[in-house]
Amino acid sequence: VPEKRYLFTPGPTPVPPEVLAILAEPIIHHRGPDFRRTYGRCLERLKAVCRAEQPVLLFTSSGTGAFESAVANLTAPGDRALVVSAGYFGERWASMASAFGADLVHVRYAWGETPDPDDLRTALADAGGAKAVYLTHSETSTGVVADVQALAAAARDAGALVVVDAVSSLGAIPLETDAWGIDVTVSGSQKALMTPPGLAFCSVSSGALAAARAGGATRYVLDWERTRAGQELLDAPFTPAVSLVRALDVALGLLLDEGLEAAFERHVRLGRACREGVKAMGLELFSPDEDRSAVVTAIRAPDGVDVAELLLTLRDRFGVQLIGGQGELKGKIFRIGHIGWFDVFDIATALAALELALAEAGAEIERGIAVTAALETYSSGARV
Amino acid sequence: VPEKRYLFTPGPTPVPPEVLAILAEPIIHHRGPDFRRTYGRCLERLKAVCRAEQPVLLFTSSGTGAFESAVANLTAPGDRALVVSAGYFGERWASMASAFGADLVHVRYAWGETPDPDDLRTALADAGGAKAVYLTHSETSTGVVADVQALAAAARDAGALVVVDAVSSLGAIPLETDAWGIDVTVSGSQKALMTPPGLAFCSVSSGALAAARAGGATRYVLDWERTRAGQELLDAPFTPAVSLVRALDVALGLLLDEGLEAAFERHVRLGRACREGVKAMGLELFSPDEDRSAVVTAIRAPDGVDVAELLLTLRDRFGVQLIGGQGELKGKIFRIGHIGWFDVFDIATALAALELALAEAGAEIERGIAVTAALETYSSGARV
Repeated sequence: VPEKRYLFTPGPTPVPPEVLAILAEPIIHHRGPDFRRTYGRCLERLKAVCRAEQPVLLFTSSGTGAFESAVANLTAPGDRALVVSAGYFGERWASMASAFGADLVHVRYAWGETPDPDDLRTALADAGGAKAVYLTHSETSTGVVADVQALAAAARDAGALVVVDAVSSLGAIPLETDAWGIDVTVSGSQKALMTPPGLAFCSVSSGALAAARAGGATRYVLDWERTRAGQELLDAPFTPAVSLVRALDVALGLLLDEGLEAAFERHVRLGRACREGVKAMGLELFSPDEDRSAVVTAIRAPDGVDVAELLLTLRDRFGVQLIGGQGELKGKIFRIGHIGWFDVFDIATALAALELALAEAGAEIERGIAVTAALETYSSGARV
Repeated sequence: VPEKRYLFTPGPTPVPPEVLAILAEPIIHHRGPDFRRTYGRCLERLKAVCRAEQPVLLFTSSGTGAFESAVANLTAPGDRALVVSAGYFGERWASMASAFGADLVHVRYAWGETPDPDDLRTALADAGGAKAVYLTHSETSTGVVADVQALAAAARDAGALVVVDAVSSLGAIPLETDAWGIDVTVSGSQKALMTPPGLAFCSVSSGALAAARAGGATRYVLDWERTRAGQELLDAPFTPAVSLVRALDVALGLLLDEGLEAAFERHVRLGRACREGVKAMGLELFSPDEDRSAVVTAIRAPDGVDVAELLLTLRDRFGVQLIGGQGELKGKIFRIGHIGWFDVFDIATALAALELALAEAGAEIERGIAVTAALETYSSGARV
């Protein structure tokens, strides 16, 4: 039989057939009326997903490009930037801010910890404020979801602009750009938004736009004001990835048709199902066992199991792609992503394959116990 | 009947069905073995198309991103940059270099002129050299193709790094990165390479890489050294647009199967056919009537014809997308692109639609004369 493949990483994620289908349509010109209609609708849908009234600026870029746009537009050399980190992506904010010459204040937690808003308040008070505070909503490297609402409040109270990495959280768990006072919500196409990688974006408040106009580093394609002005006329300043924009528009339509609240509830139940299955198998969670951690489930490597080998068995024998740990967590954990186009049968497949692969590696696991726990947990999930 | 649409712009260009088809395949992970194989092959094919031994760095970006990578990696404030311009894209090199703080020497021609290597030699001598010289191979705004080989020689003789905009020329007309001593060949996916927009790249010589390591502006996703190091391990530093990379790999395979020399000859004949058809209709060329100008044919607006209206008629009545002039040429010219996935029947379609639209606008044109001239010219095309 032809091999079936299952992509269970927290990005890129599986893309629904309706979205794939539009990628195969002939290319249209980016200044023609049909593309402009799609472009305008896509930008409005991005605002709806970000829950932002202010524009969402769309770039043809890896997700990291939208991160860089925030740092480049908001950092002139010597500007104070405060970064809260507790994993790989938080630390990347810090290295990027340093690269752009920021006066960096780094509130750094061990990987896997959950940031505390009081620590941020103290750090801001000690530093005498900051121009911008950089936060991570879902730390994809650890599975921890931070209380961004409380962290953003602490930053705003100190008069700082609030920038949030929402790459793996947007569309999966609640994020309220305007209501939580977030100036810049950064995200990308290839996570919970069910679109291939290649588009990145950030919502920008009027305060963030004004700060960008007043200074920052040299930048051209990632310049916010140029992008904003082009988007206002539905006239992208540079040829956008027209196929991907059309795909994102379709995917956002699917998400908004489901409804953001329904999607959030589905992700909570997927996260619960995954964690209960993992625990039923006798494995130990690395990510918190809490509803908020609904993006990626991180699991400690069982004693005597080589994570790299386990992942290769899963991939090459069963067609199931999970992912290991990054940086200092390499070899110590592995991760199951469950954002975007996922249902409970995907969780069951991931757990079933994991059970088989661990059994091959010599582990004693009662056959079917993880899948059973996952399905039961999912179907008993009350409204959250 | 369903509307048929014809895209005759010099970017984005039509994409062959084999390339569109792979875009609709399920997403694969960018660190898995199948993507790495595709990625490695695509990078090798890019080198073959650039005719460069040194690496070609691939970015997920609009084409402009690869331009910016050249300026950002090669420009520290005060570094002297010499730009040769004779149209919209040449002038963009100048504005980008200025934005990055270069000490700009601008050899500026009127739009539509052809740069003269002697002028470049004189300007470099007068300026006492430059760190880098920025050239435009095919000036898409005017249809002029410059003698980049001679211009590059003049720049190298003065000890400057040579950077060439080959966005609309690469794969359509001869360009020899190594043999002509070009340090940086900049191009994108959406022109003669028959792939949707969203990928941009530049070949970089060891000299250019060394200069980039030694300085330049602050940059992160467009950093050459980071990209080079990642590519060497087939481990992209940021999640690439996996779908577009797979598409580019297929498209480059088609181009190399045809053979670069065969593709160049086809483009010469397409350009000739287009120009002979245009002239047979009694229209006046703006772009040079020479074989080298095989990328885009620019045509002066006939007296009494409103270009914007003509283009709307072509697009909305006949489904044929041509494009007008940019900047100061807006309203004065219109352009037919013929790069990439084009054959003589595309030229015939463009000319036939143009004939119909001009007849509707009141012009007296002998029915069929342009198409006849184009077909005859193409089929009589001897080996060039």
